[in-house]
Amino acid sequence: MRMLINVPERVVADALRGMAGAHPELVVDVERRVIVRRDAPVAGKVALVSGGGSGHEPLHGGFVGPGMLDAACPGEVFTSPVPDQMVRAAAAVDSGAGVLFVVKNYTGDVLNFEMASELAEEEGVRVARVLVADDVAVTDSTYTAGRRGTGGTLFVEKLAGAVAEAGAPLERVAEVARRAAERSRSFGVALGAPSTPAKGGPTFDLPAGQLELGIGIHGEPGRERRGSMTSGEIADYAVEALVEDLRPAAPVLLLVNGMGATPLLELYGFSAEVQRALRERRVAVARTLVGNYVTSLDMAGCSVTLCEADEETLRLWDAPVSTAALRWGR
Amino acid sequence: MRMLINVPERVVADALRGMAGAHPELVVDVERRVIVRRDAPVAGKVALVSGGGSGHEPLHGGFVGPGMLDAACPGEVFTSPVPDQMVRAAAAVDSGAGVLFVVKNYTGDVLNFEMASELAEEEGVRVARVLVADDVAVTDSTYTAGRRGTGGTLFVEKLAGAVAEAGAPLERVAEVARRAAERSRSFGVALGAPSTPAKGGPTFDLPAGQLELGIGIHGEPGRERRGSMTSGEIADYAVEALVEDLRPAAPVLLLVNGMGATPLLELYGFSAEVQRALRERRVAVARTLVGNYVTSLDMAGCSVTLCEADEETLRLWDAPVSTAALRWGR
Repeated sequence: MRMLINVPERVVADALRGMAGAHPELVVDVERRVIVRRDAPVAGKVALVSGGGSGHEPLHGGFVGPGMLDAACPGEVFTSPVPDQMVRAAAAVDSGAGVLFVVKNYTGDVLNFEMASELAEEEGVRVARVLVADDVAVTDSTYTAGRRGTGGTLFVEKLAGAVAEAGAPLERVAEVARRAAERSRSFGVALGAPSTPAKGGPTFDLPAGQLELGIGIHGEPGRERRGSMTSGEIADYAVEALVEDLRPAAPVLLLVNGMGATPLLELYGFSAEVQRALRERRVAVARTLVGNYVTSLDMAGCSVTLCEADEETLRLWDAPVSTAALRWGR
Repeated sequence: MRMLINVPERVVADALRGMAGAHPELVVDVERRVIVRRDAPVAGKVALVSGGGSGHEPLHGGFVGPGMLDAACPGEVFTSPVPDQMVRAAAAVDSGAGVLFVVKNYTGDVLNFEMASELAEEEGVRVARVLVADDVAVTDSTYTAGRRGTGGTLFVEKLAGAVAEAGAPLERVAEVARRAAERSRSFGVALGAPSTPAKGGPTFDLPAGQLELGIGIHGEPGRERRGSMTSGEIADYAVEALVEDLRPAAPVLLLVNGMGATPLLELYGFSAEVQRALRERRVAVARTLVGNYVTSLDMAGCSVTLCEADEETLRLWDAPVSTAALRWGR
């Protein structure tokens, strides 16, 4: 076993202890699995809460802080958090202005966030929900009816986080989140399988020299497998799938995301090919982010996410953010 | 081959094209392999230049920007850059206040930066040099006489970058850099071998279930191999080696660094164990940084770096920095 862990059962709790120790600006409830920005609730501000299975770090815990999420609830590895976590998170961050739940489209997450919404509302918290279903590779998948939610989540959380930080009311924050979700598209590629602590080895078999086009962030099957492709060929395949679906009429935000085990050196080279492929299809790129943001443990591979951006989107994207994984501005 | 590349010969050039496309705040000379902050030279400011083999990203290119490096020179993968790159970088960023070269202790890097210093001085640039040799695992190694330079480089570049940004003269910037180098110690552990593009596969053989304690960032041999160890046992081994050597009398800056392929979820769990191991040895931690900063392509594993910190060190560490990989502000 090539993992840096104590025992599989304690992986998530250990990571939360590490986050608590490294980030004094966060309050981490290791027992109940809730990560909250220390200054929450922020008076008058709509709060953003997200969560999902662990193994996709820095998503979501690394995005908690001013300008993005107010709280995150990590589940077990590749497993939805439970409604109790979400309700606790909502109660911890609600200032009275309401809470937006950002939900990736996986059946467990959707059901649990629905239940949490009902429970939180019974406790007097106003709740809105946005569903992220941006992965164009396949419709319906191992854990999903419809499209999977992947890299677009970063755009939804950043853009809605910025408008919430600026003092917008719940309806407006939810609207910005929904538009970001509607305008985002992702496509992922695996060059190797991830290994989960519970299994102690790869979750599927991908022979060396093969890659899987359209992979999900839990290793769900994609569109097809192929033999070796160059970085440029992969970029063309992914960009073609994205542009065909999104048909952007405005410049895009571009996320070139690593799945976990692909070196940053290779990701930047891939980013150059993605930009070339977009240029050839006359899609202008307004902003580019390259790095490991929505990962799948130690999966080798990458994903590309586009978000069609108007002037307001660019303003919200450029607005200051201060989280463990995403930080810029004054 | 499980790499996201076009052809091995073009990996570094492709990555530089990607950096140019993603970071308008940098000027990237893809042909001559120099990365420069766009506002350089900054009037009256001492400039910091570093460089080394590629494959350790975000080091060094990801650390170019206000508050840290003025320029970086990437060599081929795991190969020193050439003096010509360093001289060009120095000329591009020197405002007349002089240039500090930050050099990791590998024979090729040391010789090439020495030659570059002479050449730059002939062109009228005042040059100082600091050598980083922080890896306590072994003395003398595959590419090194003495100790290897690894994670401590991040502390040297951040602390010296902050004092340079504040307007200190060259002698003072060099002194801060040397003290940071003297007070830094690193220890690395491999759970798997990295694969280089040129080789197309692992650079050494590490049987599954074994790990190498004291690994270098190019896969140079460490102290010993062992069978499976828990995250806590690895933390104790690394921290013991570091504390025995450094014997810190003041709180430390702590870097819990990923080598490339180890998930952030595991790194945070390891960070909790490192903090526990330090606490048990009565070493106080003033600041903690967790992530992939000084990598070895897709090597699975981690390293721990400590830097003994006085009040001034903490002020310099907390000072604003704005680079691709390290960014915080007021």
